[in-house]
Amino acid sequence: MYRFTNDYSEGAHPQILELMARSNLNQEEGYGNDSLCRQAEQLLKAAIEDERAAVHFVSGGTQANLIALASMLKPYESVISAATGHIFVHEAGAIEATGHKINVVETPDGKLTPDQVRQVVAQHTDEHMVMPRVVFVSDSTELGTTYSKAELESLRRVCTEKHLYLYLDGARLGSALVSAGADLTLPDVARLADMFYIGGTKNGALLGEAMVICNEALQADFRFHLKQRGALLAKGRVMGVQFVGLFSGGLYFELARQANAMAQRLAAGLKALGYAFLTDSTTNMIFPILPNPLIRFLESRYAFYVIAPVDEARSTIRLVTSWATPAEKVDEFVAAVKEWCERSAPCN
Amino acid sequence: MYRFTNDYSEGAHPQILELMARSNLNQEEGYGNDSLCRQAEQLLKAAIEDERAAVHFVSGGTQANLIALASMLKPYESVISAATGHIFVHEAGAIEATGHKINVVETPDGKLTPDQVRQVVAQHTDEHMVMPRVVFVSDSTELGTTYSKAELESLRRVCTEKHLYLYLDGARLGSALVSAGADLTLPDVARLADMFYIGGTKNGALLGEAMVICNEALQADFRFHLKQRGALLAKGRVMGVQFVGLFSGGLYFELARQANAMAQRLAAGLKALGYAFLTDSTTNMIFPILPNPLIRFLESRYAFYVIAPVDEARSTIRLVTSWATPAEKVDEFVAAVKEWCERSAPCN
Amino acid sequence: MYRFTNDYSEGAHPQILELMARSNLNQEEGYGNDSLCRQAEQLLKAAIEDERAAVHFVSGGTQANLIALASMLKPYESVISAATGHIFVHEAGAIEATGHKINVVETPDGKLTPDQVRQVVAQHTDEHMVMPRVVFVSDSTELGTTYSKAELESLRRVCTEKHLYLYLDGARLGSALVSAGADLTLPDVARLADMFYIGGTKNGALLGEAMVICNEALQADFRFHLKQRGALLAKGRVMGVQFVGLFSGGLYFELARQANAMAQRLAAGLKALGYAFLTDSTTNMIFPILPNPLIRFLESRYAFYVIAPVDEARSTIRLVTSWATPAEKVDEFVAAVKEWCERSAPCN
Amino acid sequence: MYRFTNDYSEGAHPQILELMARSNLNQEEGYGNDSLCRQAEQLLKAAIEDERAAVHFVSGGTQANLIALASMLKPYESVISAATGHIFVHEAGAIEATGHKINVVETPDGKLTPDQVRQVVAQHTDEHMVMPRVVFVSDSTELGTTYSKAELESLRRVCTEKHLYLYLDGARLGSALVSAGADLTLPDVARLADMFYIGGTKNGALLGEAMVICNEALQADFRFHLKQRGALLAKGRVMGVQFVGLFSGGLYFELARQANAMAQRLAAGLKALGYAFLTDSTTNMIFPILPNPLIRFLESRYAFYVIAPVDEARSTIRLVTSWATPAEKVDEFVAAVKEWCERSAPCN
Repeated sequence: MYRFTNDYSEGAHPQILELMARSNLNQEEGYGNDSLCRQAEQLLKAAIEDERAAVHFVSGGTQANLIALASMLKPYESVISAATGHIFVHEAGAIEATGHKINVVETPDGKLTPDQVRQVVAQHTDEHMVMPRVVFVSDSTELGTTYSKAELESLRRVCTEKHLYLYLDGARLGSALVSAGADLTLPDVARLADMFYIGGTKNGALLGEAMVICNEALQADFRFHLKQRGALLAKGRVMGVQFVGLFSGGLYFELARQANAMAQRLAAGLKALGYAFLTDSTTNMIFPILPNPLIRFLESRYAFYVIAPVDEARSTIRLVTSWATPAEKVDEFVAAVKEWCERSAPCN
Repeated sequence: MYRFTNDYSEGAHPQILELMARSNLNQEEGYGNDSLCRQAEQLLKAAIEDERAAVHFVSGGTQANLIALASMLKPYESVISAATGHIFVHEAGAIEATGHKINVVETPDGKLTPDQVRQVVAQHTDEHMVMPRVVFVSDSTELGTTYSKAELESLRRVCTEKHLYLYLDGARLGSALVSAGADLTLPDVARLADMFYIGGTKNGALLGEAMVICNEALQADFRFHLKQRGALLAKGRVMGVQFVGLFSGGLYFELARQANAMAQRLAAGLKALGYAFLTDSTTNMIFPILPNPLIRFLESRYAFYVIAPVDEARSTIRLVTSWATPAEKVDEFVAAVKEWCERSAPCN
Repeated sequence: MYRFTNDYSEGAHPQILELMARSNLNQEEGYGNDSLCRQAEQLLKAAIEDERAAVHFVSGGTQANLIALASMLKPYESVISAATGHIFVHEAGAIEATGHKINVVETPDGKLTPDQVRQVVAQHTDEHMVMPRVVFVSDSTELGTTYSKAELESLRRVCTEKHLYLYLDGARLGSALVSAGADLTLPDVARLADMFYIGGTKNGALLGEAMVICNEALQADFRFHLKQRGALLAKGRVMGVQFVGLFSGGLYFELARQANAMAQRLAAGLKALGYAFLTDSTTNMIFPILPNPLIRFLESRYAFYVIAPVDEARSTIRLVTSWATPAEKVDEFVAAVKEWCERSAPCN
Repeated sequence: MYRFTNDYSEGAHPQILELMARSNLNQEEGYGNDSLCRQAEQLLKAAIEDERAAVHFVSGGTQANLIALASMLKPYESVISAATGHIFVHEAGAIEATGHKINVVETPDGKLTPDQVRQVVAQHTDEHMVMPRVVFVSDSTELGTTYSKAELESLRRVCTEKHLYLYLDGARLGSALVSAGADLTLPDVARLADMFYIGGTKNGALLGEAMVICNEALQADFRFHLKQRGALLAKGRVMGVQFVGLFSGGLYFELARQANAMAQRLAAGLKALGYAFLTDSTTNMIFPILPNPLIRFLESRYAFYVIAPVDEARSTIRLVTSWATPAEKVDEFVAAVKEWCERSAPCN
């Protein structure tokens, strides 16, 4: 059964594996002090156009988020997040386990606005409450949407004005930056965020996220945080070599483009059949709203998540594509929907 | 410059990489729910001869230790460890960061005794102190020594008597179990410890430690702990496939034997030249005591750690070998010492 | 300027101070092992009609809540609370600082319903999320409302059904239990909650909350939690003697009745003038909705909190009375409102 | 049975209780924002001769220590303490519960030396270990000894040199400063320490420790720490008024002098009979070494702690006096020893 469940169903892109095999028997320093991590670091600094940034590699997104936030926050400080934020729902309380509250904001599309940030700050007036200190955004968001350059700049402004740090979860940053209509670039992100990470796991790597600390005041002693949270891999090289593979040519963005193209091909097929979507996604995750009997029919052939009922007759599902998704599988899926439509007409 | 610094200077054993490549494009469930992790789990249960054990994979030793201990301890409970214990010195306060004190015991050889455990328990009498609850041992220890079956059984008895859990850090468990004179087996460890881990990173894997929970009362909800600490890798398969490689044939013990053989060949060469050792290691880490000028000479040709001065003229160094250490490099090292000896006679 | 800001503006009820002075020079054991704490414990067990309960004294409500919840929760477990819950907003992230998430529910009146609890539990399906484990309620709530016996029983039923603990913050429990129409008793609370506290600070004591652990499975080693959080006072007697004073006669409920009577007298005066209220409070905190110019006028004569704007012209204020509030001050306040009304007619 | 167990067996000094009663019915702001805390703050700033210091009141020593240290330390930073330090043994892991390791040093007399501090710092070389950041000292120490001005100045110098904070636990600071031969003053302590607390509980108060933050960089947002740890008492006035009582005249030092005088009278009596002492205490805690049969005899008449056996025949006991200890009780105790001596001659 083919899976549109997520973008981490396959292993690594073959070029990555090849590179790993090629350097496999070279002796290297441990714990990320190896030549591969150094090379990846240089490639990333070039890609973000910021030589003063600090770069570290960790094995997953939850780990990246919990270490980043714990490193930025004093015990009584909190982080502002959309209610759909990965840290709020899907990290098993990892942020709270480091001692910090998440101030949550409801949004229609997974995107925080400056006004929402201002409002949260305004509500926190004294020492009986936490003190908001970091704004957490994801790009692309958990709903497949993306921030424009103007939107991220306006968040940066409110952060500067209110003495907040801006942190960006880039688990799917590649997909966001190459999505249709996107005007945000990697150097923009590095200029606007105090810290962010560039996701490898969901874009061609076996494992690995590149944490980028742009704000120099946050760079000191970061490896202590990594070690203390169990994130300093003895063979850190395994992450270094993958980011060398992703960033030494254009592989990173090429894979993201391919993932997006497949999701948008899927979206176009469903739109043509008249289906609506929960959000206006331009990335590799789409949220079509389908009749429940159609969903049951599709579940017999494909794996995917049903997110939530929309009304009595319909529910939102999530379809995710990756660099490894073949166009035929996309076309087969659309054909299956069409088949059901014809049998059960009308489609909705 | 050849490195005897540690047993994680190279990548993975080539058979492991090959296996990884072979399954790379199969679609699998995420977060360790894949067929490779399931297969590895079955192989490990067979190897430890305990079908009721729970098996989980994490990316490194510090992560394994902090999650294991935090899962076993109530807020006011503590863990007893030798002063050389990895958790006490070399994990950047990872255990304390989960809120728990380590009760530390000085030992000559890195091994805890039942009497020491009893003494720590006896000293903790009321609610003004922590309550010791876990005994932490490493096998092999941080000083290259190992526990005999009788020793581990006697620790188990004191644990049962005092209502303590026994936890074993097996970062180098392979090396311990196949060391000369060892009478402890993997099924013994599983029978005696409440929880332990079988180290992959230092014995042929790129990354990965297999956590084994033998005490069924400690198994519930363990994946919540993993997720909350950022240890549940999206592509958990990367660890599963490696343990399939290590345990489907005899590779795991074969690699450990090779690592031990190289260290013992090194030790024999140095002993023949009259040098003493800090501990009586039978594993892949040896601690020769060498004259400081010899150490300086060797440092110009090899990388290794100088542990501590022994007296004004001599220091202890640490030499570590792995499955990837070639016999020639060992012989060259001994030859270099001999060369220095001849030039600077006498040797000490 | 007279204060209706809260119920802790004065010191202790004079009888309490007298009792404290009388036993002052007796030598007693430290850390709550004194004869006064033992006597208070017996009085409380009699009052709640549960001889098997464990009783401990702590110095304040935030301390009581954080220790209670941290003692009940495993690292990945969470607590369900109304959005108005003291722990969610007004404890500076004290619960999160112990590592735990609060699952928050919006309510009109500060009271949780069984359906809301069921819904939160239903949303938490796997190890990517926290696991809800405690239901937190306050009685009286932060909005002055109270739980009926039937309401608390139905929460107990959902807790039992879903394997949740029921914890009750009783900072103002006296006020709740003696409020008009109340059918809940102290023995009821002890029968229905797994743990709760009886607030002393806001009802006649200088400081002190009596934590009651009814669920015997939660009683073990509780003093370790107290000590570790800095809650075990060397002179624990200072809290014991106050609870002896409050519970050896009917003082506790007498003071609560007096506080309620003053608030209800205030409410009646304002209702007679046509003002509405945010909630239907029967306790010692009322939330009248007043025109903004009236609020500004009153602020020149009285201290109280303005909670939030209701519309462009009106805001909700909070008025709190205590055992120490004189009837004249209440009547003067109502007279002041009337004075303003007459001058600015109409009243709204 | 008379108690020499500790210095918190009685309530407050009568003058303190009287002052408390006198201000009892005045309405005051809550949470330490009252006029009594403000007055106490002014008195303390005058006493330490530092107008820029920040002063806060908390209810006990463990609370003071855990909040102070947690406020000064980043997640990976640690505190250096003598093995006898209260935080290391007798606070149930309170410091570790805030996430921090204690680096422990063995001492003969409970006092840290600059060399010991330097050695701990030197041993911590990289991110695999914690980073020592605070030096914790108690004055008087847990063994009744005190720091001279020169000793504290030399610790200050090593702290400045190594970028460490100096924190002083002053649970018994009064006793230390007025002890025979003491040349350290309250303004000295304020000049040398970054943060310290002046203990009230063990010197005449019912409860209360005055935390003094001398280092201005550590003052910001301190009330958030207090609130989050449950230390901000609603009726903070109860602590304010007691420090007004202790510091408006010379009561604080007068009570400490009385406590010391009684302990030294006891020591003199025992020395005259030929008994040795564990440490050379000049304060209100003494540690005589007595024959075990004598100890058993004394235990039938007095309460006190037996600390540890010295050899097969003798043990160290701890005798503590306070402002409330009557000279007759001291004399009776010495007489009882003499009585036993005569009966069992010789004395040892």
